[in-house]
Amino acid sequence: MSDGNEVRVIGLDGMPEVAPGDDLDSLIGNAIVTSGVGLERGDIVVVTHKIVSKAEGQVVDLRTIEPSTLSTEFGQRWDKDPRKIEVVLREAKRIVRMDNGLIIAETVHGFVCANAGVDASNASPDTVVLLPKDPDASAGRLRRALEKRFGPSDIDALAVIISDSFGRPWRQGIVNVAVGVSGMAPLVDYRGQIDAAGYELSASILAVADEVAAAAELVMHKLAGRPVAIVRGYRSPLAGAPGTGRDLIMDPARDLFR
Amino acid sequence: MSDGNEVRVIGLDGMPEVAPGDDLDSLIGNAIVTSGVGLERGDIVVVTHKIVSKAEGQVVDLRTIEPSTLSTEFGQRWDKDPRKIEVVLREAKRIVRMDNGLIIAETVHGFVCANAGVDASNASPDTVVLLPKDPDASAGRLRRALEKRFGPSDIDALAVIISDSFGRPWRQGIVNVAVGVSGMAPLVDYRGQIDAAGYELSASILAVADEVAAAAELVMHKLAGRPVAIVRGYRSPLAGAPGTGRDLIMDPARDLFR
Repeated sequence: MSDGNEVRVIGLDGMPEVAPGDDLDSLIGNAIVTSGVGLERGDIVVVTHKIVSKAEGQVVDLRTIEPSTLSTEFGQRWDKDPRKIEVVLREAKRIVRMDNGLIIAETVHGFVCANAGVDASNASPDTVVLLPKDPDASAGRLRRALEKRFGPSDIDALAVIISDSFGRPWRQGIVNVAVGVSGMAPLVDYRGQIDAAGYELSASILAVADEVAAAAELVMHKLAGRPVAIVRGYRSPLAGAPGTGRDLIMDPARDLFR
Repeated sequence: MSDGNEVRVIGLDGMPEVAPGDDLDSLIGNAIVTSGVGLERGDIVVVTHKIVSKAEGQVVDLRTIEPSTLSTEFGQRWDKDPRKIEVVLREAKRIVRMDNGLIIAETVHGFVCANAGVDASNASPDTVVLLPKDPDASAGRLRRALEKRFGPSDIDALAVIISDSFGRPWRQGIVNVAVGVSGMAPLVDYRGQIDAAGYELSASILAVADEVAAAAELVMHKLAGRPVAIVRGYRSPLAGAPGTGRDLIMDPARDLFR
């Protein structure tokens, strides 16, 4: 086992419930210490967006929301809370589909996902949780705070991914993806590379940050309340400059499903 | 570290190039032995579809292909090999999009993906590799062969996933997904479950087999020619009957992007 041949995905136990105003950097750092997991050079810390949004106050009290006519009618037709529909429409930059009780929308960040990223809260039926305002900035802040506390100082020492679970057209179920990235290359571009047998690779660009987020979900059991995981041992197969979650958004000009 | 709190993703070294007619079960079993990785109860063996297809003879010699007028014109317009376009159209049950030099098609299995799953071969520019005829059956055969060789006998002892890399609308890059599944529940349905804090979960159905496939890709470095990975330690958070890769195909009636 060496050099990128084994990756460990470790669920972080000991995270408390997070509320607006909490110091998330400290809570995660504390859980890293008390769980004994620690941090090693090259670790990727994957954090469910929900606790980032909660700490940043990106929550909405539905009792303050006055639904529009559209929200009220769509909600009544599909048996959904019109106040939540209203928040979804406010978070959307563009509606991609609105049918069957579902709203697929482009968020202000450029993500296309169900309900513009607006989630029900586990803490209250009258609260919904939005995406972080700038998930890349949130990832960067957490990365710097953890590097300061745990020591690694060069840019590739640590990476942070903020994750959310998105559905996909044509495939059943949702999967974890990266909405915020700091400290790693989110894409690996194999075009023009030569494989071990001397042949040029046909596979093109791998969205490795999404694959890391997906791997993390395997230990983030929702029933156990485990919103943070450490992915240890992943080595990018190609040198690549660190990028952001925005790099994972497809150029609209190339998107056949816009 | 216990009980689903840590997952290890181990790349399997020592796999040879695979050719039509090879006994893939034995080749993978041998690499499991010689690498020292072994197999443990609950392991998930993830295998790139390409070596499955090659072993099964699901390859096409393009020199035998006579392109149609459509294939010739589309190929010329977008600077693609018309013979490969022809194979893609023959593998397609339905064309979802055909533009910008790209063909997004529904395969006979029901997968919607680029080029109906037809890949260039790394071994020859005149050869393309198709998807396995029945990836679930291929996964089942490999699972039973490995269980026979390595001992575990009850149905949940071992799982096999056959993977491919699919693109996604709206997101840059491709990610590994499961096209064939045997021995595990590919979906985990959290609807109605209560979390650690006593709240009902809003998250619905997680496509964990796709997440396992994605995790495996992190050690399947294409440059190193490592087409098999073992995912060890994953425990499904809910009891669920084993399913197949077909379970991961969205019901067309529910698909807003059909």
